[in-house]
Amino acid sequence: MHGEFKLDSRLEADTLQVGDLPLSRVLLMNDRRYRWVILVPRRAGVTEWMDLDEADGIALWRESIQLGRALRDLYGGRKLNIGALGNLVPQLHLHHVVREQDDPAWPGPVWGHSPAVPYATGEAAAVLRELRSALL
Amino acid sequence: MHGEFKLDSRLEADTLQVGDLPLSRVLLMNDRRYRWVILVPRRAGVTEWMDLDEADGIALWRESIQLGRALRDLYGGRKLNIGALGNLVPQLHLHHVVREQDDPAWPGPVWGHSPAVPYATGEAAAVLRELRSALL
Repeated sequence: MHGEFKLDSRLEADTLQVGDLPLSRVLLMNDRRYRWVILVPRRAGVTEWMDLDEADGIALWRESIQLGRALRDLYGGRKLNIGALGNLVPQLHLHHVVREQDDPAWPGPVWGHSPAVPYATGEAAAVLRELRSALL
Repeated sequence: MHGEFKLDSRLEADTLQVGDLPLSRVLLMNDRRYRWVILVPRRAGVTEWMDLDEADGIALWRESIQLGRALRDLYGGRKLNIGALGNLVPQLHLHHVVREQDDPAWPGPVWGHSPAVPYATGEAAAVLRELRSALL
């Protein structure tokens, strides 16, 4: 649990950086088919939500609720999917995916469904602006 | 958000009842291939974690942490997967799945992977006893 936080290299490669909330780094999954945002608590060596201390555990919940509401305000969506899996990337990270009935993976989970389709440059910039304006 | 809580009929059909925590009904997914436990807050008409009031939202987090620790103590496991999806069953429910590197869906998600393999009768009774003893 000690040492300096460093974002996992696979998370870094697969995402675009939105910014930092008090506890978590906020990342946009680089997949234009979904509005998919990940919270990564900036704590070194933690893989499970239950291994955060109580203050951090509640802070992650609060940031998740804040993010969920921002995503609903911005994008609507049929259902928000929240998940902490970590089978491939052990660093604790919490997915938030706005789901639509016509998205490619509906009604199944997005994880492992199909390869990401990266954003075009201008498109990603617009989404990052929206998210920063709503969250930070 | 009003009215009386009634467990969704699909959740009822797919699970075995462990018991009640202060907020949540605790259900064992009837799939012998995983230790897979679901929390369902006993609140009518709620589909998203962000729509619980603050006290209930934190209570669900606390019960999730308590359950996660009990599952780790009982079953170990390589990784705990936590998910709130609700694409098929809108009633708010929070999955907790103990994952092993040799389980059928590893490293993908369990949701939508393959049909459940129900417990044999005596086998389910033993798991329910373990869970009740650890949680209730």
